[in-house]
Amino acid sequence: MKIKVGIVGYGNLGKAIEQELLKNSHFKLVAIFSRRNIVSTFKTNIVPYEDFKTYKNKIDIMFLCGGSQSDIEEQAPEISELFDTINSYDTHSKIYNLKSTLNKITQKNDKRAIISAGWDPGLFSIIRALFYSITDTKPSTFWGKGISLGHSDAIRKIPGVEDAIQFTIPNKTALNMAKTGEMPESENRHIRDCYVVAEKNHNNIERKIKNIPNYFLGQPTKVTFVSRDTLNKLRKNMSHKGIIISKLAPSDKSSAYMELSVKMKSNPNFTAKIMISYASAIIRLKSENKTGAFLPYDIPISYLFANDNKDNLLSSLC
Amino acid sequence: MKIKVGIVGYGNLGKAIEQELLKNSHFKLVAIFSRRNIVSTFKTNIVPYEDFKTYKNKIDIMFLCGGSQSDIEEQAPEISELFDTINSYDTHSKIYNLKSTLNKITQKNDKRAIISAGWDPGLFSIIRALFYSITDTKPSTFWGKGISLGHSDAIRKIPGVEDAIQFTIPNKTALNMAKTGEMPESENRHIRDCYVVAEKNHNNIERKIKNIPNYFLGQPTKVTFVSRDTLNKLRKNMSHKGIIISKLAPSDKSSAYMELSVKMKSNPNFTAKIMISYASAIIRLKSENKTGAFLPYDIPISYLFANDNKDNLLSSLC
Repeated sequence: MKIKVGIVGYGNLGKAIEQELLKNSHFKLVAIFSRRNIVSTFKTNIVPYEDFKTYKNKIDIMFLCGGSQSDIEEQAPEISELFDTINSYDTHSKIYNLKSTLNKITQKNDKRAIISAGWDPGLFSIIRALFYSITDTKPSTFWGKGISLGHSDAIRKIPGVEDAIQFTIPNKTALNMAKTGEMPESENRHIRDCYVVAEKNHNNIERKIKNIPNYFLGQPTKVTFVSRDTLNKLRKNMSHKGIIISKLAPSDKSSAYMELSVKMKSNPNFTAKIMISYASAIIRLKSENKTGAFLPYDIPISYLFANDNKDNLLSSLC
Repeated sequence: MKIKVGIVGYGNLGKAIEQELLKNSHFKLVAIFSRRNIVSTFKTNIVPYEDFKTYKNKIDIMFLCGGSQSDIEEQAPEISELFDTINSYDTHSKIYNLKSTLNKITQKNDKRAIISAGWDPGLFSIIRALFYSITDTKPSTFWGKGISLGHSDAIRKIPGVEDAIQFTIPNKTALNMAKTGEMPESENRHIRDCYVVAEKNHNNIERKIKNIPNYFLGQPTKVTFVSRDTLNKLRKNMSHKGIIISKLAPSDKSSAYMELSVKMKSNPNFTAKIMISYASAIIRLKSENKTGAFLPYDIPISYLFANDNKDNLLSSLC
């Protein structure tokens, strides 16, 4: 039986989830919920956001694809009362707040919420925790070059900004330090390269961007104002990269170097693939009568395998 | 309160566990159990193997450090009746048999067994399953250059072999194939380079090595007979490497490349570090009254964090 799913939010990520779901025979995409008046390229049923309540019992899992800063924080609590949900909320410093909020709601309503299940946070959170558990040392993470959905979204929330994207670029000196076992300060690991479309108040907008806490404040940030055309050209490249490095001192007998690196053609499509892989975990947790909010590292990797053949498959990967 | 632990088997791995435990303030190493009459460099209490039964209630967790082919298969069932255990059993094709055996014993005796918790199987099993869950494609694994403990041990079990080590060397052509998205046949991924000390019957021993199923049969295997001195010199280099590659077709919009690479100065010490990190998982599973046999991908990564500060620490890695 197909898993009945819905998508909330129809930006880059919502569209990517739609594309990935339509390729995947395990899912039936019932509806997309949006506050905007839009149509789907693939003729998926698009429904006004407020109507999600009428889909109780018609949808098993909702993929929450709004921006982290406002959409998810606002929508996840009310949607979690009625549906199991998966999001890729990316405000690292506030993930545990969201987990605590959704934990109460889902436990009260016999539901499950999987939070921050993208590539970072998500895949990378799992790897950082795994590396830490072996080495007792915090690994270094580098992103880019690539557009950060979360950072771009944060800029777009500033009044007067018509559109914006932010490229995260790793600082090569810091990357080489990490590879040789030194721990570069996290503020120096990246350059934040912002492209913004705005009619006026450029100085004011630039100042506001550089002061967004958790996203830009304290990090080398470059802001360039461009035309809508230029921005749309820059945006076409959705590729991204990430690398996690963990190194134990070479003087130690147990010295080791661990590195995870990921490159993707489309950041939203890769994020979508990870979010979709967690649908199996929802099904498994539900079958065990578990409720609550979970981060990816709270869930065994074997729970991402749901089909009848899962033991054979897992055994072949072991 | 310190976790009281024992070590069964005092070869390379047992010695590495001893070294790592003595550096770690969370553990009290109560005794090492061995069938041989030996002493510990660090003056740890060494006890005849059969006496393990008298340590019931004096030891919380036993680290099983014998060879996979005979020791673990024989010892794990009887030790699991009395103790929680962690092993790094590495005969990939028989891991699920061992899991099934130990699952019954541990459930009957209110115990827990964590199986194959080394770097491969173990860390690498988690990563392969994680990559698969995202891509629906089996990743390629390459090992070496480095000594394989399991393969060396398998050779040493052959009658007439006084000592042996096996270097696993990745086949560069196959590695490059994997990096560009092709899937090399697993039999062609490595060269198995064996060094053997034996007084006579060289041809017979060589034939026996090349026919050990799961370890050498069907793979390019080179056997060189050497003096005990030469072998001891070769053995001093305990370094090892491993790499897992997962690539989605570049034509796909969701195309992505994921790679995990690990290098270590000492294979047994790195394996030991991973086995020790799973002690926290035993404590956590016990606190939840869970019993049974678990592979690393059956356990959430967050269970590897056991101290009072675990939420703060995990939150900082998220």
